[in-house]
Amino acid sequence: MQINNKPYHTIWLSDENPSVVQVIDQRKLPFVFEILDLKTPDDCFFAIRDMAVRGAPLIGVTAAYGMYLALLCYKNEDLENYLREKAEYLKLSRPTAVNLSFAVNVMLDFMLRNLTSPNLKEISLAKVEELKSREIRFSEKIGEFGLKIIEEIYQKKQESVNILTHCNAGWLACIDWGTATAPIYKAHHKGIPVHVWVDETRPRNQGARLTAFELGQEGVPHTVIADNTGGHLMQHKMVDLVIVGSDRTTVTGDVANKIGTYLKALAAKDNGIPFYVALPSSTFDWQMEDGITEIPIEERDSDEVAKIEGWNGNSIQLVRLIPENSQAANYGFDVTPARLVTGLITERGICKANKESILKLFPKNK
Amino acid sequence: MQINNKPYHTIWLSDENPSVVQVIDQRKLPFVFEILDLKTPDDCFFAIRDMAVRGAPLIGVTAAYGMYLALLCYKNEDLENYLREKAEYLKLSRPTAVNLSFAVNVMLDFMLRNLTSPNLKEISLAKVEELKSREIRFSEKIGEFGLKIIEEIYQKKQESVNILTHCNAGWLACIDWGTATAPIYKAHHKGIPVHVWVDETRPRNQGARLTAFELGQEGVPHTVIADNTGGHLMQHKMVDLVIVGSDRTTVTGDVANKIGTYLKALAAKDNGIPFYVALPSSTFDWQMEDGITEIPIEERDSDEVAKIEGWNGNSIQLVRLIPENSQAANYGFDVTPARLVTGLITERGICKANKESILKLFPKNK
Repeated sequence: MQINNKPYHTIWLSDENPSVVQVIDQRKLPFVFEILDLKTPDDCFFAIRDMAVRGAPLIGVTAAYGMYLALLCYKNEDLENYLREKAEYLKLSRPTAVNLSFAVNVMLDFMLRNLTSPNLKEISLAKVEELKSREIRFSEKIGEFGLKIIEEIYQKKQESVNILTHCNAGWLACIDWGTATAPIYKAHHKGIPVHVWVDETRPRNQGARLTAFELGQEGVPHTVIADNTGGHLMQHKMVDLVIVGSDRTTVTGDVANKIGTYLKALAAKDNGIPFYVALPSSTFDWQMEDGITEIPIEERDSDEVAKIEGWNGNSIQLVRLIPENSQAANYGFDVTPARLVTGLITERGICKANKESILKLFPKNK
Repeated sequence: MQINNKPYHTIWLSDENPSVVQVIDQRKLPFVFEILDLKTPDDCFFAIRDMAVRGAPLIGVTAAYGMYLALLCYKNEDLENYLREKAEYLKLSRPTAVNLSFAVNVMLDFMLRNLTSPNLKEISLAKVEELKSREIRFSEKIGEFGLKIIEEIYQKKQESVNILTHCNAGWLACIDWGTATAPIYKAHHKGIPVHVWVDETRPRNQGARLTAFELGQEGVPHTVIADNTGGHLMQHKMVDLVIVGSDRTTVTGDVANKIGTYLKALAAKDNGIPFYVALPSSTFDWQMEDGITEIPIEERDSDEVAKIEGWNGNSIQLVRLIPENSQAANYGFDVTPARLVTGLITERGICKANKESILKLFPKNK
């Protein structure tokens, strides 16, 4: 997708130095556009933990690059132990996204299978690039399947389709296209008029900062709203469709996503508005049956609630929002029960949010 | 209630100069504690419009003082016309709160009935003070009735009662005690352990700034959360009770309150958690039957969403949160349908959120 009219991915190998991975530093968007160099597994760990990169698919690919960088940084210990340690370490960078352990495990398995290969580095890099291409391909497929939902609404309504989204499940959360935004970009490129209600998504404001930024750069009409607003808009028929992403979805269709998603799903249900979750299959957790009791919910630094970053005209400034002696709590995700989800948009098509329907699309995971 | 261990009301007549009304400038809390002088109806209009004072009961009393100040500022036009004009003007300061027109109408009727009285100023001031005392008395009664709900939960649970509230329906929104907070203060004063989850309440952050401030000053344990968080807490049984205020409640029990209230009510319903609305009877709209279609919802300046105020260590700073070319929308309130409300806590007792039950408590309004 475009930034300043130039096409980008969120992560790539440096043109100048193939032992350097580069990412867009998403902590500074939309105020400052800056590229960050990652040279070690540590760099990848902190880029993920400190959210220079975020979004389940991008976290996965960053960690996969982390495994590749581990090979480049390897000195002369036991290689198998070393790789296992790095894999465990990278998985600890964020607890909720299942893509993270998925991608790390794919890389670790691949490396262990090819431990004695003379060109382990080269084929490992190819494996990372394969994972990356797969994410792009999956996002595009999600976009094509989701496009049909938007097209149908447009055919009935013959007016701009109002889509509400929460957090950033955009191309910045992926490699390209995004998950929740992929159908929106596909519709926009096809000339279907769409307008996006962008939840600002406190506490980290990924909606106000990232989704608004990427939609704006791509020319998609959008309006930022406080997270409190969606219910009111839905009551007044100002939302035709909700599409969100997911950080982990159980095989039974319970959806972990950014905190607040559950509240929007309740409002969509209450007002008869379709609520879709767009996700690549790497986001499924094939073991878990009950999202609310089983999915671990990351508790993050309370300062993310107590303080906020914004642009003061010259630089990014952090300001305090709460009284000095008050405490804050910061739960990163919530779980939307499957009963509130109209459908899941995956790279293989759209299915209902239940085990039977999910496993019909992904029969190998039975 | 206390600020820096000194008891305050939110509005009072200056000790030094009885033609000056003083209010706490709530735009600067919790960072700066400052008193604002109001000398004219204009001062009152702007204090309300710009939210130096806010909260339905406080807005009403401020406008009533505005009518009194109108008398002090009166020169030599036709007095009746003059008062009618000032009344209409003051009512335009905020559109949603019904207390505003209620209080202005009470004052106007009183003044028109006593137009020829030689001590019109004195008796009008007494009328304002009566309205003010009435608000305090009503808040205290709401506190006593609501206390029983908290006590019952505590008796079952024998552990700290977790109460979630949205926005500021605290004593800062009233004259003293508050509406939603009155039962909390009563419980706290009685030694019942309570803990309050404080929704920060974007876009204006009345929760993070005002509710957290007043609870802290009064020594009530509390934790500020992003507005997205309540659903997750309720799913995990970390909320025993929700109490919010109201800006206007229809005779059928539909509740207009700060944007986002509806989303919390949905989550409370979904998780079987009692959801109470605390309101003085002046907040009832006895004419309206359908809150969602009939209550006008104020649309405020989109900059309140696009920017936010915080403390940079030295002063209150306004920072921008969204990309320069993105738009924002700012709906001030939403309507929670009566079916989601467990009960209304009024100065006459607790009733169900339906016409029959409401009119049983307030039979004169049939």
